[in-house]
Amino acid sequence: MTNPVLVEVLRGEVVESAHRGAISVVDADGRTVWEIGDAGQPVFPRSAVKAIQALPLVESGAADAYGFGDRELALACASHSGEPQHVDLAASMLAKAGLDKEALECGAHWPSSHDATIELARSGGWPNALHNNCSGKHAGFLCTCVHLGVAPSGYVKAGHESQKLVRDAMQSVTGAAQRTELCGTDGCSIPTYAVPLRSFAHGFAKIATGVGLDPKRAAAAKRLLSACMAEPFLVAGTGRADVPLMQAAPGRIFVKTGAEGVYCAAIPELGFGIALKCDDGAGRAAEVMIAAVLSRLLRADATLAARLDELARPGIESRVGAKVGLLQPGGALLS
Amino acid sequence: MTNPVLVEVLRGEVVESAHRGAISVVDADGRTVWEIGDAGQPVFPRSAVKAIQALPLVESGAADAYGFGDRELALACASHSGEPQHVDLAASMLAKAGLDKEALECGAHWPSSHDATIELARSGGWPNALHNNCSGKHAGFLCTCVHLGVAPSGYVKAGHESQKLVRDAMQSVTGAAQRTELCGTDGCSIPTYAVPLRSFAHGFAKIATGVGLDPKRAAAAKRLLSACMAEPFLVAGTGRADVPLMQAAPGRIFVKTGAEGVYCAAIPELGFGIALKCDDGAGRAAEVMIAAVLSRLLRADATLAARLDELARPGIESRVGAKVGLLQPGGALLS
Repeated sequence: MTNPVLVEVLRGEVVESAHRGAISVVDADGRTVWEIGDAGQPVFPRSAVKAIQALPLVESGAADAYGFGDRELALACASHSGEPQHVDLAASMLAKAGLDKEALECGAHWPSSHDATIELARSGGWPNALHNNCSGKHAGFLCTCVHLGVAPSGYVKAGHESQKLVRDAMQSVTGAAQRTELCGTDGCSIPTYAVPLRSFAHGFAKIATGVGLDPKRAAAAKRLLSACMAEPFLVAGTGRADVPLMQAAPGRIFVKTGAEGVYCAAIPELGFGIALKCDDGAGRAAEVMIAAVLSRLLRADATLAARLDELARPGIESRVGAKVGLLQPGGALLS
Repeated sequence: MTNPVLVEVLRGEVVESAHRGAISVVDADGRTVWEIGDAGQPVFPRSAVKAIQALPLVESGAADAYGFGDRELALACASHSGEPQHVDLAASMLAKAGLDKEALECGAHWPSSHDATIELARSGGWPNALHNNCSGKHAGFLCTCVHLGVAPSGYVKAGHESQKLVRDAMQSVTGAAQRTELCGTDGCSIPTYAVPLRSFAHGFAKIATGVGLDPKRAAAAKRLLSACMAEPFLVAGTGRADVPLMQAAPGRIFVKTGAEGVYCAAIPELGFGIALKCDDGAGRAAEVMIAAVLSRLLRADATLAARLDELARPGIESRVGAKVGLLQPGGALLS
């Protein structure tokens, strides 16, 4: 099945590039609400499922034991930009468990934020693992290990208790088996498993509503999504799409980007979970897709839909700041 | 027409993302040698045609008047990484015409090279228009204006003599009309015109062979392509794909990348021009495509083809440097 074009890149009046993809919107009972393209295709969710991967942090009691509030829980679900607030918070989470950055196994990279990179270089600094966009998630894994009395070393490996807990949460929430033959390694060294897009959408409908989850898991899920919606900057960073998307309707929209053009999202008031992937892995297109899908699903609120439509049409500028093009939803995503 | 998948992105054993595109290989007489997908689609060439856009610099006599050799001509055809060598050379070209960076109308941006950005920030510096990846091309435009006695101000505008010369060269070499309704503005503020991919391929076959060009233009074209093949670092920069591609067979392969997944290339010994575009605009995929196409066309040289095949399969690493995936040619590009 060839997925349809969902996003067009215009320069002047000409379509310069185009992005294809698949989208799945599912309710908590598993019923398909809206589907475009092959929503049954197995997709690596990458960072889009960090809110599910953070369930053991809350369910184990570690989050309470270390006094984590919305800020820490949001960072545990984040692909942050490595700005000072993110880095400091990740360090403080580790410190609560008696650890420091040396315990992180995610690797170091310069901050995703260009401005943060410039500032770090200007100050004579170098990046460490705290700057890794996944350091909050890894801090969560480590805190869970320490709280449970599990030796943290090797916590990124598939056979470690930490990843077993993550895998159990993922399978239980999405209802999809995590199969070894569909396992890859994420950029931060943990396993990632390809499962159907539809299963992720169903999973996010469940964690947004609590339907189909035991009460403890439902409470943990609600706490994590609420934390992300309360602290969108900590989930992403300055200028990143997830921030204005969640700020467009505080507490009503949860979104999380993943590498290679993935989004998982939820609209609690409608009880819908959303998962999408841009075929070619382009984040710029996935951002347009999620904004357009949210606009369509929330069109009963005209002001909100208009704001989301605006986010679905980001401009392209020349190096002197003139608007020379834009991205826009196309084909089946046109409303 | 739906273009076929030409590049697969693998994580572990799973295809995580895929890129579609079109490819045209044409000889100097305009005969199609090899074609995949819709090679008749109008495509913005962006920076892939800088060697054609630099023809007036040589043909006007400006290059000789200012004593430009391979290094300056390569930079005039470059999308450089803003490394100190690039920046200094662009400044020296402008100085020959009595100008400085204030004359550039391309806008400033931090160097494309991450390392150069870090070094610039560390030294307390800020980017200026010389760091713009197009500053060599713009220096060429400006030198041409000064040499011809044309006031340089506004040289990026479609109605300026500078862009008229560029447009004439483009139309004459590619044989395709540059139509106002298919005009966009490039990132560096000059006009860019969408014409069929096939026309670019034919144009590069002509400038690689001189066939169909008047002797003066043929000589200028040969000088520009030779300069790029002699100085690949100046055409691109550290770690950029165009460098190892041209270094793989010094003087035998010309390649030039353009934004949004475009490549133009030539193989003088075969008399072939090549143009391709990745539908979704991904540079990573266009790099795989051009390496795979060159490998196929040059397979008579087994050692060279093996090196090109290697370049067509770049690895993907985790943040700790483990190989977790790769890009590879797929479908019609599989040899």
